Amino acid sequence: MSGPSDPLSPRSGERVRTRGPRPSLGRRVVAEGVGTGFLLATVIGSGIMAERLAGGNVALALLANTLATGAGLLALILTFGGVSGAHLNPAVSVADASQGGIPWREVGAYVAAQLLGAFAGVALAHLMFDAPLFSASRHVRSGFGQLAGEFVATFGLIAVIRGSSRAGAGMTPFAVAAYITAAYWFTSSTSFANPAVTLARAASDTFAGIRPIDAPGFIAAQTLGAGSAILLLRWLIPNRPAVSDDISTIGDKENAA
Amino acid sequence: MSGPSDPLSPRSGERVRTRGPRPSLGRRVVAEGVGTGFLLATVIGSGIMAERLAGGNVALALLANTLATGAGLLALILTFGGVSGAHLNPAVSVADASQGGIPWREVGAYVAAQLLGAFAGVALAHLMFDAPLFSASRHVRSGFGQLAGEFVATFGLIAVIRGSSRAGAGMTPFAVAAYITAAYWFTSSTSFANPAVTLARAASDTFAGIRPIDAPGFIAAQTLGAGSAILLLRWLIPNRPAVSDDISTIGDKENAA
Amino acid sequence: MSGPSDPLSPRSGERVRTRGPRPSLGRRVVAEGVGTGFLLATVIGSGIMAERLAGGNVALALLANTLATGAGLLALILTFGGVSGAHLNPAVSVADASQGGIPWREVGAYVAAQLLGAFAGVALAHLMFDAPLFSASRHVRSGFGQLAGEFVATFGLIAVIRGSSRAGAGMTPFAVAAYITAAYWFTSSTSFANPAVTLARAASDTFAGIRPIDAPGFIAAQTLGAGSAILLLRWLIPNRPAVSDDISTIGDKENAA
Amino acid sequence: MSGPSDPLSPRSGERVRTRGPRPSLGRRVVAEGVGTGFLLATVIGSGIMAERLAGGNVALALLANTLATGAGLLALILTFGGVSGAHLNPAVSVADASQGGIPWREVGAYVAAQLLGAFAGVALAHLMFDAPLFSASRHVRSGFGQLAGEFVATFGLIAVIRGSSRAGAGMTPFAVAAYITAAYWFTSSTSFANPAVTLARAASDTFAGIRPIDAPGFIAAQTLGAGSAILLLRWLIPNRPAVSDDISTIGDKENAA
Repeated sequence: MSGPSDPLSPRSGERVRTRGPRPSLGRRVVAEGVGTGFLLATVIGSGIMAERLAGGNVALALLANTLATGAGLLALILTFGGVSGAHLNPAVSVADASQGGIPWREVGAYVAAQLLGAFAGVALAHLMFDAPLFSASRHVRSGFGQLAGEFVATFGLIAVIRGSSRAGAGMTPFAVAAYITAAYWFTSSTSFANPAVTLARAASDTFAGIRPIDAPGFIAAQTLGAGSAILLLRWLIPNRPAVSDDISTIGDKENAA
Repeated sequence: MSGPSDPLSPRSGERVRTRGPRPSLGRRVVAEGVGTGFLLATVIGSGIMAERLAGGNVALALLANTLATGAGLLALILTFGGVSGAHLNPAVSVADASQGGIPWREVGAYVAAQLLGAFAGVALAHLMFDAPLFSASRHVRSGFGQLAGEFVATFGLIAVIRGSSRAGAGMTPFAVAAYITAAYWFTSSTSFANPAVTLARAASDTFAGIRPIDAPGFIAAQTLGAGSAILLLRWLIPNRPAVSDDISTIGDKENAA
Repeated sequence: MSGPSDPLSPRSGERVRTRGPRPSLGRRVVAEGVGTGFLLATVIGSGIMAERLAGGNVALALLANTLATGAGLLALILTFGGVSGAHLNPAVSVADASQGGIPWREVGAYVAAQLLGAFAGVALAHLMFDAPLFSASRHVRSGFGQLAGEFVATFGLIAVIRGSSRAGAGMTPFAVAAYITAAYWFTSSTSFANPAVTLARAASDTFAGIRPIDAPGFIAAQTLGAGSAILLLRWLIPNRPAVSDDISTIGDKENAA
Repeated sequence: MSGPSDPLSPRSGERVRTRGPRPSLGRRVVAEGVGTGFLLATVIGSGIMAERLAGGNVALALLANTLATGAGLLALILTFGGVSGAHLNPAVSVADASQGGIPWREVGAYVAAQLLGAFAGVALAHLMFDAPLFSASRHVRSGFGQLAGEFVATFGLIAVIRGSSRAGAGMTPFAVAAYITAAYWFTSSTSFANPAVTLARAASDTFAGIRPIDAPGFIAAQTLGAGSAILLLRWLIPNRPAVSDDISTIGDKENAA
């Protein structure tokens, strides 16, 4: 998901195959907005549909919500990854910038577009399902367990993005979609892992909503999780220097074995 | 999904790896017909099977219908993509032609084959499940919300096809299948997103059917959605000129960063 | 799935990347036996587990059975494809031979291994679930609709294998697994599409079984379906001649456009 | 999954594309620990969530548990495969060493990290779901059938890893994830297939737990299954000698056909 940022960054060790020059910031920001909008429409819309049809069985509703979100993420990252990197997530944009991806001065525009797109996506989902455009959620999501869940969820997401970028060309979209599919079930918070998504879901009194009062805690936990992942990954998977691969192996005793 | 059309189009920026010359129009049209037939057999047949077995739980039935449709689409695009591009959808054929894919004069043959195949697929599904070959659907699908759903569904489909073709060789089949899997749940209309499919599903009084009277509205919404997507994508992901990549970067200030 | 046969066949237009020489017939036959054994253990075993846990909801049981079969097929084809081609199916071996894949004289050994493996797989599944090694099925599967289902299922399978081999390196395992996942739901017979599987499932009085008396009809329909697909595909996707690509384009007026 | 070990091993026939030198043992061991931790958090956490929401329907709970585990495995192998090979399993590390992968002297460190990570992952899952960090499981898993299940499950896992590494670059993560997805349903034991996972799941009195007294039998069956697979695969898919490919074909009469 750091494709478009690579050409600018000599510290970026892995180079996703991009075709031609990086698109203009305007195009990339629109891609982030439209992509995040579709992501939220997917999360909220499929939650509404699932709850309406599941006849009270929450496991069945969450299963449908999970399938739609995971599949939707895969489609969206494959679609917008080549334009903007398909971050769709302020935590990902910050992590990308911290690893020498997009320049820090562009982070603000990315995040603004993600927020705008996220709320537009909520409104779009509500429009399709004949509900008011926005509604404050009453879905309680609180407690230490769920905050721990958000820490773990976001830590894992950043690790997956960074690690999978070394697994071969084009593997990151599959890794991210698979990760979120799993994290909807293995984290107690159903894995928001995204500050823009968290704020926008607070504006939806539906299956996927979150009480506005619970959102700040989620975002704090996400921030801690992302920061911890960035620190670990910086050591675990260091960027190789652009100048010489030889240097990077000096003193690496394992390689002498 | 625009593989076979690329060799003819200097405006086509991305070139899907094709092997050898483009197949004859006859072969491509048969591929579109057989492929669309299997698509409809999948949608209708799995809907019948799911409704019969689900014991009244609509969420469970739609989950099975979704799994079958998404998986079936992946198989069909991988199978027929190398012959005809596997459009299986008049909206996709028109969008492809508008982007310099298949020549406009071939669109009629593509669409005719898709329509013929679609109705044959419905009859085939009914035959397998011991039902009359055709039956007017009584499944009500109307209202502004569902029309908005079809607009969104088709807009997204066209965007996914266009965007994912830049994500790397062979990613489009996965992106399209994942998108439809998600869209069955996140759009209020369960995402027909295909005029040929819409007309043929009107001839099936089963789980996946649509009242004939509701079909024109769906098709109008699909047309608007596809048209809007074509306009946005033309700006968001411009074709690169065939002559020189340099020209395309003139005035693109971002690239000077 | 015709990888290992390509080096011998000048008529084989698509060349799956194989590494080194074709394995010995002994190795390939063992791979077919072990692979088909695991396939049957998957189909039968997951059917038993699903029926035991589903509490009478057949849609839920078939959903689990489908997920296990589709995922298992993907794993098995990726595992044994590089050794024997992972046909795991007499209809596929015959189709492969008819297209210049494995030599005709090897088809007997392939089919014998598939049959032996299939019955061993049934016994293995029964062993794991504490049931008698074999038991005549009482699961009725008859009528014109289901025979039509087997015709369609096998026709589609052969078309998917042949068509997807042109979609890019390594796409066939995904196409086949996705196709069977869909066909479990869209064909009225739940898509056996495999004579060896059909015979072996007759020896299992469980969820996935078939009455022995119904098996011959299924196999006849499968044979007709495979044969029809071979004929259509031979025209739709002709092998390119080994000598010259130029010849194949003579008279192909579409290419002059 | 044997990527990082290849550069050291002249007997390693298949070379996964690695970028740069093998990471230090410290990094690889941390990757194994973190990866196995996430694996256990996924298995245990999704089991708790699924059981809580499924309203007593075990098939539905296992379906969610399966989806999360399969998707999580795919994400984890894609993430950590490039660092440590993402064994996440002592049986895999031993099999890898036996095939000339990681040196035997590193197996101890790998296994210790996997065990530590596994128990940490259990504690993490319990923490997220507000349960005591550890609790002895009371989930009975015994009897010849389930032991046979573990033998089959582990045999298959080792075969899939070895076989799929020849199917093309990057196919092993998909093959392993798909295999475990299937094996959750087709083996009577729901496929632990991993000694570290088995021990750690004994410390969780939840859906995915196993009575401590049942663990040794499972591990014995896993050991036998892995050993048998290594023996079969050594014959079925021999490593090619590093010196000359010609030698490997001498006496291979099939290749003369």
